[in-house]
Amino acid sequence: MSSFPFSIQKLIDRFARFPGIGKKTAQRMAFQVLKSDEIQAAELAESIINVKSKIRACAICGSISEQDICKICTDPKRKIEMICVVEDPQDIFIFERAGTYRGVYHVLGGILSPLDGIGPDDLNLNKLIDRVKEDTELILATNPSVEGDTTALYINKLFAEKNIKISRLARGIPIGSAIEYTDEATLARALEERTSL
Amino acid sequence: MSSFPFSIQKLIDRFARFPGIGKKTAQRMAFQVLKSDEIQAAELAESIINVKSKIRACAICGSISEQDICKICTDPKRKIEMICVVEDPQDIFIFERAGTYRGVYHVLGGILSPLDGIGPDDLNLNKLIDRVKEDTELILATNPSVEGDTTALYINKLFAEKNIKISRLARGIPIGSAIEYTDEATLARALEERTSL
Repeated sequence: MSSFPFSIQKLIDRFARFPGIGKKTAQRMAFQVLKSDEIQAAELAESIINVKSKIRACAICGSISEQDICKICTDPKRKIEMICVVEDPQDIFIFERAGTYRGVYHVLGGILSPLDGIGPDDLNLNKLIDRVKEDTELILATNPSVEGDTTALYINKLFAEKNIKISRLARGIPIGSAIEYTDEATLARALEERTSL
Repeated sequence: MSSFPFSIQKLIDRFARFPGIGKKTAQRMAFQVLKSDEIQAAELAESIINVKSKIRACAICGSISEQDICKICTDPKRKIEMICVVEDPQDIFIFERAGTYRGVYHVLGGILSPLDGIGPDDLNLNKLIDRVKEDTELILATNPSVEGDTTALYINKLFAEKNIKISRLARGIPIGSAIEYTDEATLARALEERTSL
């Protein structure tokens, strides 16, 4: 059996390392690189290098940025007394796409997970403590999972003495979904946290 | 709404150009590059450049190779009088994975498609004419589509006077499939080309 030339196989293997990219897709991508012109391939390679060299963590919130302080933290129209705490920088862009939030963010850079050996010291918590003032409102936007809940409870306890306003995202039936297809846990939560009309 | 930093957005756009890669997957891939260490990112970039610079077309069959002549064409154990004609280099590696074919290949580099303006002059046919000798057997392995059939018929006509052996791949029910799920065209073809026991 003849196999792919070495350099193609290497690129396939490297594409296949990405999450959600299977062997077949990696193969198709590698052959696409082969078919594309040299400039396109060079641009792709350059973009990969640029992402690693130009992007750093925002000194205030820990999000990704090409400057020392990210666009959101430098935006004077943002309410700095409202901090939405997220797990990853990606989460911020999902909030931004929704377009209704006018506060700032704080990136934990992970989530409490004793099984994976991730404790409070591994999260970006010290900077959060520094940012929280008397009039701060914290919105805990960790994922609705066991780890997400644990992390939210931990942060809540961390600021218990400060007597600040802390909330979490509402859990319930997603917009556009149907009750018929809603799982039991979500439905129970939606019932429990029902809002009055 | 705040958007991704420029260099991340650029990489997302470039990943999203690949066939089968949607916006979400491209996004996840770009963030994966950001998370990976610098060496891994550099290796990926290098692999992309290498594929473009090291891979060329085999001077005999038109397949991809890091040498002037590909591994299959230089293999003395291959029967050079049996030529399997395929559309793309990728097809060769699928045959090789099946592992039973001991002849050589010829890559057309496309398929006749008048609607897309692809005529016989756009295919790697002159080299095929040069390769065909008196004792050559041609196996036409174009895809089972209208264009694939047209191309196979065209090549068959091209060598009509040479009186060589020309065949095409059998069409029928795929192994492991069920008659219940076979489409009408395939079933009709499987009936028509039934083999005696």
